[in-house]
Amino acid sequence: MSRWEPNARGRLEQAALDLYQERGFEQTTAAEIAERACLTERTFFRYFADKREVLFGGQDMLREIYVSTIASAPDSAAPIDAVAAALEAAAPVFRERHELARQRQTVIAANPGLQERELLKRASFASAMADASRKRGVTDPAASLAAEVGVIAFKTAYARWVSEPDEQDLSRLIRESLNQLKGIIAGE
Amino acid sequence: MSRWEPNARGRLEQAALDLYQERGFEQTTAAEIAERACLTERTFFRYFADKREVLFGGQDMLREIYVSTIASAPDSAAPIDAVAAALEAAAPVFRERHELARQRQTVIAANPGLQERELLKRASFASAMADASRKRGVTDPAASLAAEVGVIAFKTAYARWVSEPDEQDLSRLIRESLNQLKGIIAGE
Repeated sequence: MSRWEPNARGRLEQAALDLYQERGFEQTTAAEIAERACLTERTFFRYFADKREVLFGGQDMLREIYVSTIASAPDSAAPIDAVAAALEAAAPVFRERHELARQRQTVIAANPGLQERELLKRASFASAMADASRKRGVTDPAASLAAEVGVIAFKTAYARWVSEPDEQDLSRLIRESLNQLKGIIAGE
Repeated sequence: MSRWEPNARGRLEQAALDLYQERGFEQTTAAEIAERACLTERTFFRYFADKREVLFGGQDMLREIYVSTIASAPDSAAPIDAVAAALEAAAPVFRERHELARQRQTVIAANPGLQERELLKRASFASAMADASRKRGVTDPAASLAAEVGVIAFKTAYARWVSEPDEQDLSRLIRESLNQLKGIIAGE
């Protein structure tokens, strides 16, 4: 029977981010993360499939939020509005994770393999959102274009949210990015 | 001294595409490609660093066209117009390669590793175009947004160009994609 470990997931995540920054992602093992968090390696693997999962664990939850929000968009919503609603619906997931997100970005920026993983994650979000749009009757290329534009807007908003010292409203930054994109593509 | 091999590159490329489609990319070796093309393995490696290079070889040339076209855009050109000019300037590279492009897409669609490689290629184009825009004085986020939007427009236009049986004007398809994006993001 395992002891109850208060906030084991949070402690492991913080220990992992600290070690990834101190030693580099490649040089850190799951055992070392567990040790730093004063937990066992077995406990680590109860929460994370591997050390990469610490950085990319929320992916399924985000995808579900995106897909279900697009699915429930009113018929009258334009493709880009359904996608924008999906991105904003997921914004609360990041609340109170501003400092963790900043550390995560530092780790990813230092490792080309993790940058590729981040790129694949975004492509999979775009693909899931395009599928969800098609299911509500949006045809291609509109379904995939709206999803891709949404992913770019989110990426830009997120990078700004992470880089600014005070935590801003991510939803507002997403809307601002979409407005900037509108201006850009109109040739402003 | 090596014999003169008429159109060795083209023969190797076609042999590779045939074998990738028949046996799968992973199951094909450079030696088999050379044999199919009635050339030596040494000749293969004179033209391509490895069997992946057959599918991704034109990348440096495209990047150079993108970067130099953006660099020479008039000061008055909006960021998206400079990017659009760059994408259109590269369109002639694909001329007379319609059937090869179709075969290449079939090979890539069958292999997740190659799809990742294609994704990385696009990200590197976006990054090169954003850098080129910054050098002509475009600030961020406009520089990166214009580049990312350009890459999406190209990807969409290219997929359509490849999938349609008659070879269409790729430049025209790129302009159409940009117009579709404009409509999408305006909420149409």
